Amino acid sequence: MIKRILKSNQVKNLSNNPEKNKTEQFEEFCKTSHPAVVAENIGSLSPDDAWTKLKPLEPSLRAEIFTHLETDFQIKMIENLKRYDAALLFSDMPHDERADLFMLIPEDKQEVILPALAQAEREDIRRLTAYEENTAGSVMTSDYAPLSPDLTASQAIEHLRKVAPDKETIYYAYVLDKQRKLMGFVSLKDLIIADRNASVSEIMHPEVIFAHVGDDKEDAARKIQKYDLLALPVVNDKDALVGIITYDDAIDIITQEHTEDLEKFMAISGSHEVASYINSSAWTHFKNRAGWVVALAVLGLVSGFIVQKYEELLIQFAILATFMPMLADTGGNTGSQSATMVVRALALKEIAIKDIFKILAKEAKVGLYLGLLLGVIAYGRVIFFGGVDSIPAATSVNMIGIAIALALALQVITATLIGALLPIIASWMNQDPAVVASPALTTIVDITGLLIYFMMAKLVLGV
Amino acid sequence: MIKRILKSNQVKNLSNNPEKNKTEQFEEFCKTSHPAVVAENIGSLSPDDAWTKLKPLEPSLRAEIFTHLETDFQIKMIENLKRYDAALLFSDMPHDERADLFMLIPEDKQEVILPALAQAEREDIRRLTAYEENTAGSVMTSDYAPLSPDLTASQAIEHLRKVAPDKETIYYAYVLDKQRKLMGFVSLKDLIIADRNASVSEIMHPEVIFAHVGDDKEDAARKIQKYDLLALPVVNDKDALVGIITYDDAIDIITQEHTEDLEKFMAISGSHEVASYINSSAWTHFKNRAGWVVALAVLGLVSGFIVQKYEELLIQFAILATFMPMLADTGGNTGSQSATMVVRALALKEIAIKDIFKILAKEAKVGLYLGLLLGVIAYGRVIFFGGVDSIPAATSVNMIGIAIALALALQVITATLIGALLPIIASWMNQDPAVVASPALTTIVDITGLLIYFMMAKLVLGV
Repeated sequence: MIKRILKSNQVKNLSNNPEKNKTEQFEEFCKTSHPAVVAENIGSLSPDDAWTKLKPLEPSLRAEIFTHLETDFQIKMIENLKRYDAALLFSDMPHDERADLFMLIPEDKQEVILPALAQAEREDIRRLTAYEENTAGSVMTSDYAPLSPDLTASQAIEHLRKVAPDKETIYYAYVLDKQRKLMGFVSLKDLIIADRNASVSEIMHPEVIFAHVGDDKEDAARKIQKYDLLALPVVNDKDALVGIITYDDAIDIITQEHTEDLEKFMAISGSHEVASYINSSAWTHFKNRAGWVVALAVLGLVSGFIVQKYEELLIQFAILATFMPMLADTGGNTGSQSATMVVRALALKEIAIKDIFKILAKEAKVGLYLGLLLGVIAYGRVIFFGGVDSIPAATSVNMIGIAIALALALQVITATLIGALLPIIASWMNQDPAVVASPALTTIVDITGLLIYFMMAKLVLGV
Repeated sequence: MIKRILKSNQVKNLSNNPEKNKTEQFEEFCKTSHPAVVAENIGSLSPDDAWTKLKPLEPSLRAEIFTHLETDFQIKMIENLKRYDAALLFSDMPHDERADLFMLIPEDKQEVILPALAQAEREDIRRLTAYEENTAGSVMTSDYAPLSPDLTASQAIEHLRKVAPDKETIYYAYVLDKQRKLMGFVSLKDLIIADRNASVSEIMHPEVIFAHVGDDKEDAARKIQKYDLLALPVVNDKDALVGIITYDDAIDIITQEHTEDLEKFMAISGSHEVASYINSSAWTHFKNRAGWVVALAVLGLVSGFIVQKYEELLIQFAILATFMPMLADTGGNTGSQSATMVVRALALKEIAIKDIFKILAKEAKVGLYLGLLLGVIAYGRVIFFGGVDSIPAATSVNMIGIAIALALALQVITATLIGALLPIIASWMNQDPAVVASPALTTIVDITGLLIYFMMAKLVLGV
């Protein structure tokens, strides 16, 4: 059995099959395989050839496979379709994906397709596309299964059976009153276990976990994760049910947020929102990355001015320049580490803004340990690996070692605290903590580090 | 209705209620609320007090709430329980969570509880804990619903109805032959829609997406995401079904992997595996972070040696020191950006090792654009903001500007290419691309950057 599965997954190039049975074989393949597997398969063809293969299939199966194609590919395919074919595809798609795709096709194409859709479908697209980006409303789907509280368990199952083909899921059904207000929910499991004649209102769970249309989509996804839900109902301002977010969308939202967090952390702007790495041009990549890099390079010039200010000191003690890269790197590394820990703990709700003093106390300790350890290493480097032949007579190697070790220790402690503090401040200002990206932090602690370094050197060396 | 939900979510301190109705009120609260809500609620009590509240509840509800408590809390609670109570809790837990928890309680407690469990439960724990960490086997659960191919649809539904309370999910059932080999799967939706007398073998999907016990758990989770599955069957070496991974575990695996990736990226070792940020001591945090920081600080000393080697040049042209921090930062930033893009694209399977030349070509272009832009900015800085009063008579400001601009541009291009190349090499060596962490990369491009810088300066300035 398993061999057969592997085989069908490996059918890479369908056109290798003899021409005669081609269509039949493809139909058989579509019926037995997961639509995502079929989509991957025809994704390597041109959009026109892919459509030629899909066209003879039964419309709902065709729409299911189409839904699993890459977005770019879907758009290209739609652009070449006749109005009627395009409208038929749209009719059978899941409502949330249909609304998202509709927004991405060219406006003239939208105007051609819209009149070919049924009134209810037009309304649905209009409604679903009206919500602001990143809200629960913008990711929900309207093809949920509502139930009346008066049905019996067996009537409810019969009802779900009938509506199943048009619904995103029938495993969770929502019990609504006359104003479409959410009274409770039942799972198909509840209905099957229950007495056949028990009423839905008796079986249902009246305490429903839900989201509001205006909630952040990531918060909604985290609710699905926290409560192990198959779907989360979404209500509008009047507490009426308007849609659901399903677990598979929650996984995608969480993955997307991960990517965005990581990119924000590395000061790359909005790159994964539109296209994948390989489909974005070098120019697009450049635009996404240049902003922060230039801003930070300009900020990095501040470090340059500090160095310039202490030029005399550097000429007198050339060994100080030797430790500048290590000081900058170590400050950046320790600061980025504490920032990463705090950003992630905030995202996972392990800590909140009110824990600020607990966090700073902890990071101060971690910074102290790291600072002591690194200070000792730097002192050892100065004493044992010299490079201090040309120091002024009045100064000892020992004093230089102490100055550098103290400056490094202080730099590490400061960087660790700044790294922990900035994400908390960002969070307190209702900004995403990840904006205090590692590159920005590195540049900031570079500046503080150099100030600490030269001031400490002047103090200890008495110049 | 919604007001009622909010209210019950807000019951923060149950002991505010009058003593008399306390137990009854709590029971009512447990029955109507999501077990995760109840768990959050009693999680603020001491483990002993929480047990006092849970003890009178019906055993399966009690186990469900217990399953949603934090792991540390569960361990503390188990440690104080009588053998019989502990065994009863273990009996009713989901099999995967039970096995995970069992491995975490102290050995003497394990030995006390084990004999109090039924033979089948002992076997199950032994089996599930035997798989290597991070494999599909280690995260699967054994309480799946198997079906015989000879049943009719209505018999199958009746069977699922009976076994439902003991199964993790009845929405996906797996059809097995006599050797427990996976023949296919049916969803409860398929069974409900099908003709009542159709046989399971007719209804089932013979092409099953599955994982092997030894597969990476993240790959298994990604399959659940890709194919929108509720559960993924896991087979052993003999192709026999031994467990399933459910979608809710997939979400948790994906979240956990992301945390680990981010921490690896910032050179923090295994911190989130055991405890949360706030529950780890400063000393633990120090140990998790110190390794890489020290290693990189020592590597950073190489940069120091390079600076030392060019000391004379620096004394002659003190302005060169002014641009060292900006050169280091910018190289680190651009390198980290391309590394981040490539690591993430590899993780999302948008690119593979074979795309190496495509990726390098793209990054070379991005690096060229960034390098040109930054070179121009650096040149402008030298020309307009001076700091070059003390240069040797033989050299012009213009030449210094050109030297610095060229070095910076070359540094940015090199750093971008190194940043893209290292994760691909790591991936090719079967290492996690994220190990080429941003801090390691920053230190490496620091070294290459300084070499480029001084060599370029010598070349252009002719000293």
